[in-house]
Amino acid sequence: MSSKPDALARIRIVLCQTSHPGNIGAAARAMKTMGLRDLRLVRPKKFPHAEADAMASGATDVLAAATVCDSLEEALTGCAFAIGLSARKRELTHELAPARAAAEHAMQRATTQPVALVFGTEMSGLSNDELIRCHQLAMIPANPEYSSLNLAAAVQVMAYELRVAALGEISAENAPFPLASHDDMEGFYRHLEETLTHTGFLDPATPKRLMPRLRRLFTRARLEKEEVNILRGILKSVRRAQNK
Amino acid sequence: MSSKPDALARIRIVLCQTSHPGNIGAAARAMKTMGLRDLRLVRPKKFPHAEADAMASGATDVLAAATVCDSLEEALTGCAFAIGLSARKRELTHELAPARAAAEHAMQRATTQPVALVFGTEMSGLSNDELIRCHQLAMIPANPEYSSLNLAAAVQVMAYELRVAALGEISAENAPFPLASHDDMEGFYRHLEETLTHTGFLDPATPKRLMPRLRRLFTRARLEKEEVNILRGILKSVRRAQNK
Repeated sequence: MSSKPDALARIRIVLCQTSHPGNIGAAARAMKTMGLRDLRLVRPKKFPHAEADAMASGATDVLAAATVCDSLEEALTGCAFAIGLSARKRELTHELAPARAAAEHAMQRATTQPVALVFGTEMSGLSNDELIRCHQLAMIPANPEYSSLNLAAAVQVMAYELRVAALGEISAENAPFPLASHDDMEGFYRHLEETLTHTGFLDPATPKRLMPRLRRLFTRARLEKEEVNILRGILKSVRRAQNK
Repeated sequence: MSSKPDALARIRIVLCQTSHPGNIGAAARAMKTMGLRDLRLVRPKKFPHAEADAMASGATDVLAAATVCDSLEEALTGCAFAIGLSARKRELTHELAPARAAAEHAMQRATTQPVALVFGTEMSGLSNDELIRCHQLAMIPANPEYSSLNLAAAVQVMAYELRVAALGEISAENAPFPLASHDDMEGFYRHLEETLTHTGFLDPATPKRLMPRLRRLFTRARLEKEEVNILRGILKSVRRAQNK
């Protein structure tokens, strides 16, 4: 299995019957900023077009490499899975996933096979005929009073979620430092409990919910190995200070 | 404490010296789709402008209500916390958070106080003079070979992350218990630092990175009010035990 960042190369963005060439250019830019390159255009109204180039800014290479197709079917050739973007709830025949869950799912599949994200027109989204070629629907959670994202803005949000999923979510934050193991954590909790008993904060006769509450807090923080070392260092210093 | 969706009303988007009025309009649209309404413009090149209105689409009300300011300082009036968006790593004087973590942090603070997200110019981002007025930097993880998001696209990504944070996600887990306020946390850190100095674990002459590391850990855990009380109870018991 290849790595997840490589999998971004297996994500295909399909824009169906886009009206404004500026939106195609802006979508290409959005894609490139997030490391996506495979753009397919189903019967665009105007393409190529100077406005598309202008809005693409430094992503004209993505535009130049875009494939123009006669049908969604053609644009999906070779794809294992297609996710349609929808601004509203559609027929219940389709599973409707929030953007984040859909992106995570897409990146998981893309580790082995090409996956398409399919966007409809600016005015009316995907047609029913296009919808039935999608395996899943994804929705970007939006203000119910005004849910109309610009097409390129929707591409940007999905491309961003795909990149975050590819990079490994929370791991972006945690990755540089190894997380504490189960044993590390249990050792820390024993040490903490002993120390709190010594300072008198924990009465073993009436422990109440103290240790479970502290476990809940530290589990949520997902401690790194080095952080457990620091906390145990603190506990040792408490004991030493008490014995002075 | 008010609910998190209400907190979206306490998020302020500040655009500094924007060159293209179309970007201001597109940013207003991005904001409204995610339920944000408070837009402040610091010395925009051209505003109001027909292009801004055109790109705002159904969000011209957000544009009409936007405040034009002479300085970033003026735009931040009444804000408790300002997060600057950066496309690259800047001086190490600022904490640099990934977009998602920054949005979660912002929503937490916005439950009680106004929070600003500050965006620089299209060409060069935030100036150093603007940067020093921000408490934290946030970065949207992007393709290192082409990280240049369109301004409105960056606003869309951040507004989306704010909305997802507001709707709950992780908060589904935390919501039942009120989170500690900024003041609670600062009080805890002061208490922790004093106690560690007393036990001898922290040498004020050579503090190294101890307190920043502990802050990082507890920020990640997003402490509840009651948890801060427990931790401060522990610190008090350490002190009492030492004085016995």
